[in-house]
Amino acid sequence: MSKAKKTAVTPTREENFPEWYQQVIKASDMAENSPVRGCMVIKPWGYGIWESIQRDLDRRIKETGHENCYFPLFIPLSFLEKEAAHVEGFAKEMAVVTHHRLVAEDGKLVPSGKLEEPLVVRPTSETIIGDAFARWIQSYRDLPMLVNQWANVVRWEMRPRIFLRTAEFLWQEGHTAHATAEEAMEETLRMLEVYRVMSEEVLAMPVIVGEKPAHERFPGADKTYSIEAMMQDGKALQAGTSHFLGQHFSKAQNIRYQTAQGGEEFCFTTSWGVSTRLIGGVIMSHADDNGLRVPPRIAPKQIVFVPITRADGDEALIDEFLAPVVKELSAQSFGGERLRVHVDRRPLAPPEKRWEWVKKGAPIICEVGPRDVAGGTIAMIRRDGELKGQITPKDEFVARAASILADIQNSLFTQAKTMLESRTVTVKTKDEFLSVFSGDTTFGRKFVRAKWCGDADTLAMLDELSVTVRNVPFDQDGAPGTCVLSGRPATQEVIFAKSY
Amino acid sequence: MSKAKKTAVTPTREENFPEWYQQVIKASDMAENSPVRGCMVIKPWGYGIWESIQRDLDRRIKETGHENCYFPLFIPLSFLEKEAAHVEGFAKEMAVVTHHRLVAEDGKLVPSGKLEEPLVVRPTSETIIGDAFARWIQSYRDLPMLVNQWANVVRWEMRPRIFLRTAEFLWQEGHTAHATAEEAMEETLRMLEVYRVMSEEVLAMPVIVGEKPAHERFPGADKTYSIEAMMQDGKALQAGTSHFLGQHFSKAQNIRYQTAQGGEEFCFTTSWGVSTRLIGGVIMSHADDNGLRVPPRIAPKQIVFVPITRADGDEALIDEFLAPVVKELSAQSFGGERLRVHVDRRPLAPPEKRWEWVKKGAPIICEVGPRDVAGGTIAMIRRDGELKGQITPKDEFVARAASILADIQNSLFTQAKTMLESRTVTVKTKDEFLSVFSGDTTFGRKFVRAKWCGDADTLAMLDELSVTVRNVPFDQDGAPGTCVLSGRPATQEVIFAKSY
Ligand SMILES: [Zn+2]
Ligand SMILES: [Zn+2]
Repeated sequence: MSKAKKTAVTPTREENFPEWYQQVIKASDMAENSPVRGCMVIKPWGYGIWESIQRDLDRRIKETGHENCYFPLFIPLSFLEKEAAHVEGFAKEMAVVTHHRLVAEDGKLVPSGKLEEPLVVRPTSETIIGDAFARWIQSYRDLPMLVNQWANVVRWEMRPRIFLRTAEFLWQEGHTAHATAEEAMEETLRMLEVYRVMSEEVLAMPVIVGEKPAHERFPGADKTYSIEAMMQDGKALQAGTSHFLGQHFSKAQNIRYQTAQGGEEFCFTTSWGVSTRLIGGVIMSHADDNGLRVPPRIAPKQIVFVPITRADGDEALIDEFLAPVVKELSAQSFGGERLRVHVDRRPLAPPEKRWEWVKKGAPIICEVGPRDVAGGTIAMIRRDGELKGQITPKDEFVARAASILADIQNSLFTQAKTMLESRTVTVKTKDEFLSVFSGDTTFGRKFVRAKWCGDADTLAMLDELSVTVRNVPFDQDGAPGTCVLSGRPATQEVIFAKSY
Repeated sequence: MSKAKKTAVTPTREENFPEWYQQVIKASDMAENSPVRGCMVIKPWGYGIWESIQRDLDRRIKETGHENCYFPLFIPLSFLEKEAAHVEGFAKEMAVVTHHRLVAEDGKLVPSGKLEEPLVVRPTSETIIGDAFARWIQSYRDLPMLVNQWANVVRWEMRPRIFLRTAEFLWQEGHTAHATAEEAMEETLRMLEVYRVMSEEVLAMPVIVGEKPAHERFPGADKTYSIEAMMQDGKALQAGTSHFLGQHFSKAQNIRYQTAQGGEEFCFTTSWGVSTRLIGGVIMSHADDNGLRVPPRIAPKQIVFVPITRADGDEALIDEFLAPVVKELSAQSFGGERLRVHVDRRPLAPPEKRWEWVKKGAPIICEVGPRDVAGGTIAMIRRDGELKGQITPKDEFVARAASILADIQNSLFTQAKTMLESRTVTVKTKDEFLSVFSGDTTFGRKFVRAKWCGDADTLAMLDELSVTVRNVPFDQDGAPGTCVLSGRPATQEVIFAKSY
């Protein structure tokens, strides 16, 4: 491929990061906006990535003892009214079903059959699942109750952004009930750790693990924890959250159990979720100016062969050459799954096909022409490196393919980790703080790690800069110090960042 | 277990089939009605069965060249208005979203933020996917377009019935576009055959494959095909449908392609789907008066061990005995998947646990006590046979487990097949026809196979009997004959039945 600076995606990340993001999604054909405001259509390449994430995470959720269920899409208004504090956080923007019928009137369809009680399309399922828990849990023997569901949820969005903030999105939501606060807290942190491992090992997306400050808690939660990732524009993405809900929901919903001693107690509950937002995180972590780069663990196709056919008969020749290669590769494993190998036989020009796979970010793209067949080689392009075919003996490629995928997985993680570390700065003074977050720093934007007092008056300063406290990382030095914003004594270090 | 006639489920099938159905669902803890009218909560055992069905069918859908996508939950009213005939079939009962906000007023929440255009919660996705197809398909090179989605859909139901007819249900819907009518018809029949194989081989549910009569077609379809199963009460269950939509939707939605010759043509489209209704079919095909019997291919747990502990130390002893057994079993495969083996260590009385697994219908339940450990045996209960433990040397059990599961799968299929065949009667006269469908025949109800003219006036007769034409089976003798209802000449044989 040419050494010219021309990129497959315009604009580049440096030129206009938000527009680059949209163009990568288009170039990789992952998804598109739908005619329904704020809702997206997830296309095969995007949905394939989601299926990989689901498969991996579902296994981890089951290995930690949870069972999948399915709860209704609709929530009666009365359920939300019961949960006043909860509503406060979500009530603003929800899809409300008010009618159950359409009738034709003057060639138009109009809603009819008004519901006695309006129904809300679930924005999250604490209330409807809590209602079931109140019925299902009688005794300490029923605890812990550990359920998960994969579902769509709807939160009306005023400024939708594909994958990052859509009216409808797909997610999993875990909901659990426990006899003691200790067990519920263990569960909360266990699932946060599951998210960290999945994010780092599978999405190759390093994260900062910590507790959200009080004002950023999930409505109704006693404590909210998050994993936060750094996007290439230096903004933070909250990639997953886990909530310790204390007895707040169990008291509102009457989730009680009889103890071994015969007494009656309210349960302690948790909830935790990740969504299709993770795909937005993968894009902004790993894509470059030539399109997406998919971490091999979640690539729908990991190795793509593009036959280079010029003359009649080339196709049959190359097919014959590739058949045993594909067979041997497909029998190998990487990350606990069989290799996903694909031969692109579409009747398109080979360079067109190659560029398509570059833009989609298939981890390994192999071109094979008649000369390769004669020489027993393939021309291998690693999507994490220069986009130039490396002539490789086919037997060597077959022998090394799984370890090359592992190497690509590592290199994407290392690149992202290096970025996160090199662009997280520790500052001591407010002036330093302001200089990091002011000016046009689009592509050089940073995270600030600094002491913070947590007082309310500092929030206004942050608001003005459009900066937020991402979380209080678990690793703390614990040394007394001074709040970078107020100058007051402060011990805890937090991550400040602009964010999605 | 005792030989008394007492059954785990009351009433029995003969006593009250509809109530028995509800009680089996309760006894097996598969699902329950939710506080949201017509919506169900699918519990782990029911959802696990659905996950098995999904895993199997998803593989078949992908092997036939389809890719999974995800389309919006909401459909703008204008999309339905475009599709007048389509609306006619669905317009009656749909969930309509009219507002996108809730506000608190006098302690109540009231809908606010009226939408300019109401949105309908998808009852099916032809219109929203057709809209995408119109954008995605430009040239013959884009064809065939083969997509599928796994999703929830909502059809307001006046008489909901868990799994069979619920306001919200889960399903897959395939949607495809083709250059020619022939290719679209091939696709329609290919997916019908996929459903037949899945139903018979995986759900152990024999079906009659055929075309729906014109008046039972999907709104907008040129032809609708179905698989029909017989439930134990002799009623038919439409278990899956596949539609040849001709150019009806492509013309309404402008789905056109440029031909190789440069002309422009409308595509031919298809759609096909199966839903959580299949679980209702599994229950009414295989459950007995002691609860569910799950075909091994879809059982979330296929082999369940119940330790019989009486004295202290028994538990450790049995665990030690079982560890290598579970390990060896879990390494074996059945139906292309690893055996799903479970040891039930809950602190409950062993007979209680055994009965729970009988009611859930785990295919093999093994009791293991200290005497078994000493003798190297297990007491195996096959759920398809008498509920009596057969003492079996553990090595023999390990060696034969996969083939026993295959045998149970076959025996459930054979029982259902025998019922379908023995209770499908051929009749020649209207009197015979009436005698089959009149009187109180609840548990002896039958299918009638007979010639039918297809004329409109026969439908009123059927209505009066609450009998429907299920389908026109593919296997026909083609001999001229007489319509069983009208006495007019008729060549086609059809299946008449009461139905769900
Ligand atoms: Zn609350
Ligand atoms: Zn139409």
